[in-house]
Amino acid sequence: MAPRTVGELGEFPLIERLAARLHRPRSDVVLGIGDDVAAVETRADRLLLATCDVQVAGAHFLVDGCDPHRLGRKAAAINISDIAAAGGRPTHFICSLVLPPDTEVDFVESIYSGLAEEAARWGADVVGGNVSKGDTLAVDLTLLGEVARGELLRRDGATVGDRVLVTGSLGAAAAGLQLKLNPGHRVDERHRRAALAAFETPTPRVEQARALARAGGVNAMIDVSDGLAADLGHIVDASGVGVRIDAARIPVSSVAREVAREIAGDPLAWALAGGEDYELLFTAPPQRVVPLIEALGEVAECAISEIGEIVAASAGRLLVAPDGEASPLSGDGWRHF
Amino acid sequence: MAPRTVGELGEFPLIERLAARLHRPRSDVVLGIGDDVAAVETRADRLLLATCDVQVAGAHFLVDGCDPHRLGRKAAAINISDIAAAGGRPTHFICSLVLPPDTEVDFVESIYSGLAEEAARWGADVVGGNVSKGDTLAVDLTLLGEVARGELLRRDGATVGDRVLVTGSLGAAAAGLQLKLNPGHRVDERHRRAALAAFETPTPRVEQARALARAGGVNAMIDVSDGLAADLGHIVDASGVGVRIDAARIPVSSVAREVAREIAGDPLAWALAGGEDYELLFTAPPQRVVPLIEALGEVAECAISEIGEIVAASAGRLLVAPDGEASPLSGDGWRHF
Repeated sequence: MAPRTVGELGEFPLIERLAARLHRPRSDVVLGIGDDVAAVETRADRLLLATCDVQVAGAHFLVDGCDPHRLGRKAAAINISDIAAAGGRPTHFICSLVLPPDTEVDFVESIYSGLAEEAARWGADVVGGNVSKGDTLAVDLTLLGEVARGELLRRDGATVGDRVLVTGSLGAAAAGLQLKLNPGHRVDERHRRAALAAFETPTPRVEQARALARAGGVNAMIDVSDGLAADLGHIVDASGVGVRIDAARIPVSSVAREVAREIAGDPLAWALAGGEDYELLFTAPPQRVVPLIEALGEVAECAISEIGEIVAASAGRLLVAPDGEASPLSGDGWRHF
Repeated sequence: MAPRTVGELGEFPLIERLAARLHRPRSDVVLGIGDDVAAVETRADRLLLATCDVQVAGAHFLVDGCDPHRLGRKAAAINISDIAAAGGRPTHFICSLVLPPDTEVDFVESIYSGLAEEAARWGADVVGGNVSKGDTLAVDLTLLGEVARGELLRRDGATVGDRVLVTGSLGAAAAGLQLKLNPGHRVDERHRRAALAAFETPTPRVEQARALARAGGVNAMIDVSDGLAADLGHIVDASGVGVRIDAARIPVSSVAREVAREIAGDPLAWALAGGEDYELLFTAPPQRVVPLIEALGEVAECAISEIGEIVAASAGRLLVAPDGEASPLSGDGWRHF
């Protein structure tokens, strides 16, 4: 009988099976899966980017009811989103899997298929990795990328007077998480599917981020992974400034609004604190706002909203309600502990 | 009262505390800890290397009685060893930590101190990472490195007629593991310390590997992590050849011999199957053996042993005993499942 679990199959046969799920390597890959190291070409006019993010069973997903292909896609997408938010293109994944021995081989192969599919979608390859035994399943990815020297975007450049902008809409992923955690909630099937898709298979904004980096004028950028309030906090902390956001201008997702109506949730809270939307949050001087919106319009259909302004650190971090009342911008976003 | 656990401290304060444990960044680091991505300079005349390896509680170490500083050093060293075995120099670490919320902050800080110390020892920096909640503690490192284009060493180039060589000695790490697993064993204190040091704080052979890569003529190289037999198997599998090893010429560590005598173990079995010695195992044509030994002699005191020969695949994989009797080269080495 064919081995059903990774414990029955063994480490090296498992690696062979996983490698078979990968697509054709990029032409810059000198040495890929099959050695202890990967070797790739670099270009002197590019900076090398590196990021990592992990999906841990019990913390980020539940093995029961998990779609492993979507898990692989999401693990890839959240890393791609970080490279995108730096203005870069993703190039090479290193995949570290921690697997309980009773994990089904099919399950692991599907994770890899999802990873390979999402990587290939954005021109990246899986060039190496590691499988290890452990009590808790985890998919830990490191993603390398590249960016032209002058186009690196970072979180610490926000300047007083900058406008604050965000792509797309926010809150749908949080709505999807609510439905995932509470499968008994009765909601319209189209809304359920859309909210779950936002949570389980987010689309990193690679082309949009590249357009912004090329256009120039973005002073700080980050992807919305921890939640709008928390990620704005990261920009503001790193830049030594304050921020003032108009609540009415936050692009709350229509799916989040619908689901919130059906299950008595708060869609603005989801947008502020839910996280995992993987939209681009950035700041730019007022005179660059129109050119940046035009640059975005040329690459892909993608809403863009101006939601506030960078102010002096002494002015604090404020959320201004439609009636003009200002409150502290909170919403802790996703905290790991 | 100061927060004692990572759950009490919180994610972002923890990251700040860990970043403070790091040393001064390399001059090629454009963007290090504190953003979602790291950005580093590259050189067009170098290949970029990447590897990853994880230490998982329960599988690779036990939290009870664990010295976290040594754990950090070892997690770093085993990755450095992989970059070294490719002929390269380690440059940048990305560190992903999975932590149960009740993990003590001191424990995590000590892991980072060990990691930073071992990295700095070999000229590498920690430039990024991630902390995440999870039921099982894991330290997952990705290490980048660089090698001149012509000096990349891989496992798949072994050629019939090549001699098989190995640096240092083998089996001490396995002896250390035995003592770790069976603390009741009574052995001489010096032997215990030496065996535990071999297991807990291995020294990657960076300078030796660089000397071999520069000298030229190495056809295949790997580090001994899974055990001599298994790692020879990796070279032979990848190269499509066979191998014949003289048991009497395997450099069994004197510490392994002493401990084996005291606890009735088999030091040759430890050398063949124990793994984690992190010595360099390589093959080279006969006329390159003397120049390679001379090149090694110039960088560091390090024994080197010629232990056998690469033969045709059809001749199999044999271990020849001192009496001339040949048996299949087995010793599965360390299997993760």
